[in-house]
Amino acid sequence: MPEPAGIGVLGRGTVGAAFAEQLTERAFQVEAISGRRPEIAGVLTRSEGDFEQILSDSEIIVELIGGTEPARELVTAALQAGRHVVTANKQLIAQHGDELFAKARDAGVQLRFEAAVAGVVPVIRVIQESLAATRITRVSGIVNGTTNFILTEMAATGAAYEDALARAQDLGFAEADPTEDVGGADAAAKMAILARLAFDTPVNLDDVTYEGITEISPSDIAYAKELGLSLKLLGVAERRGNGISVRVFPCFLHRGHPLAPIEGPFNAVTVEAAAITEITMSGPGAGGVETGTAVLGDVVSILAGEAPVDQTRERLEIVADVSSSFYLHLEVADRPGVLARIADVLGRNGISVQSVVQRGLGEEARLVMVLHECPESRFRAAVGEIAELEFLRAAPRAIRVIEEEFV
Amino acid sequence: MPEPAGIGVLGRGTVGAAFAEQLTERAFQVEAISGRRPEIAGVLTRSEGDFEQILSDSEIIVELIGGTEPARELVTAALQAGRHVVTANKQLIAQHGDELFAKARDAGVQLRFEAAVAGVVPVIRVIQESLAATRITRVSGIVNGTTNFILTEMAATGAAYEDALARAQDLGFAEADPTEDVGGADAAAKMAILARLAFDTPVNLDDVTYEGITEISPSDIAYAKELGLSLKLLGVAERRGNGISVRVFPCFLHRGHPLAPIEGPFNAVTVEAAAITEITMSGPGAGGVETGTAVLGDVVSILAGEAPVDQTRERLEIVADVSSSFYLHLEVADRPGVLARIADVLGRNGISVQSVVQRGLGEEARLVMVLHECPESRFRAAVGEIAELEFLRAAPRAIRVIEEEFV
Repeated sequence: MPEPAGIGVLGRGTVGAAFAEQLTERAFQVEAISGRRPEIAGVLTRSEGDFEQILSDSEIIVELIGGTEPARELVTAALQAGRHVVTANKQLIAQHGDELFAKARDAGVQLRFEAAVAGVVPVIRVIQESLAATRITRVSGIVNGTTNFILTEMAATGAAYEDALARAQDLGFAEADPTEDVGGADAAAKMAILARLAFDTPVNLDDVTYEGITEISPSDIAYAKELGLSLKLLGVAERRGNGISVRVFPCFLHRGHPLAPIEGPFNAVTVEAAAITEITMSGPGAGGVETGTAVLGDVVSILAGEAPVDQTRERLEIVADVSSSFYLHLEVADRPGVLARIADVLGRNGISVQSVVQRGLGEEARLVMVLHECPESRFRAAVGEIAELEFLRAAPRAIRVIEEEFV
Repeated sequence: MPEPAGIGVLGRGTVGAAFAEQLTERAFQVEAISGRRPEIAGVLTRSEGDFEQILSDSEIIVELIGGTEPARELVTAALQAGRHVVTANKQLIAQHGDELFAKARDAGVQLRFEAAVAGVVPVIRVIQESLAATRITRVSGIVNGTTNFILTEMAATGAAYEDALARAQDLGFAEADPTEDVGGADAAAKMAILARLAFDTPVNLDDVTYEGITEISPSDIAYAKELGLSLKLLGVAERRGNGISVRVFPCFLHRGHPLAPIEGPFNAVTVEAAAITEITMSGPGAGGVETGTAVLGDVVSILAGEAPVDQTRERLEIVADVSSSFYLHLEVADRPGVLARIADVLGRNGISVQSVVQRGLGEEARLVMVLHECPESRFRAAVGEIAELEFLRAAPRAIRVIEEEFV
């Protein structure tokens, strides 16, 4: 009978505790699948445990500390010592993935990180294994549960952003300092990871342009509903010419879009390629138990002897100025010639209008326009000009619209 | 430099041609991932090719003939000769899986079949690998694209079943003889495969009870719309007590159900477990190119050295009489006491009523009831009694309702 496989756990937060419990509870099942009985070799916390001892007793190191240091140092040491590593740490992979993948290859060990993106939703495995040989053209995702909860709440109740955030905090879906989530940085790190895997090319966190949802108002969502659209914080990584673009931004999705029905704290990712049309995967994006399950799945795959070793094979350019369709919301003085002036600015910038709704509000009027796709630089130039017009009563508000229905 | 890996292809239909083209086109990519360049070693068709020669030149046999014979004989020979096998053949796996898995284990080779269920949607890999150690409680799926296309068409246009079927045939979504699809047998074979993998227990095709969609009328769908429900042909494999139940039936889904938005020829599968809440995967359930991609994914995994070997570890009882909630549609003579008599039959059978809508139609009335969950045997007994009542004007119509909102 083979010896038990020692599993060293770094960190004992919610995910760490859930993982340790599941590993113990499912040890028999894991042994039946892999032929090896897993056993916790030790747990390292800030105050307890000896890393060197844990390392020497473990075949697999499970890193659940989060953040870049000391996680990076410990994972590096584990890989160099010839240990497989499983991590749920998106920042570690997004910022130091290339360096760590190289160390794993040098040592002939695995580095798995399913839980780093979209929790238990198996998007990493599907992209790395099922679609390894497929030429992926686009990955779109709702990869931050906090913001999706807030937007769902705003749409369902008409609540203001601040109130929806407070409710998310009450329910444990948002942290006391929600900046990383609501500002888009968390989603950006996850999209950097997905883009790297999907396109086999190095992607730095700096390559990802991102916006958050802090400026979204209930009226944006109300207008969207009238148009049959739902507002999501979307991450999009896609091929553009010979390069790629990786962005995170709030946008309106048409009802037929596969990500439009994703509500509350759920995450979902759609992968597109000519050879698959599209595949969408959804499920809880966080939660201690769910994330622990994703980590356990990686541990089982290592014990069962599966061994994808990640290595980028392309060097694709990052395209910054991509084309989008925009919704533009303007508060203007209600007088003749206003629409003509705005249309003139748009026309001079080569932007054509798909639809306009104008509503009088006493002395003011509200113009809501949906514009046809154009390069973002041109749109920004036009909005800059419009903002200077003397009859504008408030700063223009712009949100991207995903036009195409995927299905 | 290692030798190319010979791939022997059995069958040259739509999927076979698409697979061969992709393998050639992506050979460089496959080599980069796996270290081995794949090469078609030969193609066996009814009139061409020598199986023994192909076998001796191949490391992997890809079976794309379909049906049980000669596919079973050829796959058995390949496994016994120590060749890995990839197949897209649901009947082969549903009817002879245990026997073939045993041969693969004996020979120490892999038998992969991602394309056998839900085309390119990676449900097999996710259940077998990501969730290998997870105690799955339920798998629900829309696993037949033909029927989902027909039901979507009926809902969108109000078309009768026959007209929607004719349109599906025109568009290539249904075969000239659609019996296997519309009668539910195709979905039953796929659910047998999913149940076996999810619950680690032998499941025979005979263990799956199934119904099709041939009796669905436009008025069923019209009523459902009023209630905010959508009609799907659903496969459900779930734990019931210490056993399992595996069924395929048309049913109404509430709007919040993750499978409710799945339209047209798409497939989708939701997997539930305490440790994951739920994961839903969707995408095209058929198509030569898409299915070829699923086959290619399996080939790449074998070349990359991953090796899950399937073996059931449980012996769970098949539970036949499961509880469901039902929609019951009755055409009756419009006179006093009718509702009381029906309510009496339901009450005596221990079935309680959730809602009733009664509509007069001149001398007749239409009663549409939604009943609370009860064992199917009791519901059938009650419907049998109701059908005998002298004021019934047509046979009772019953469709299951999936009550719970998953999310």
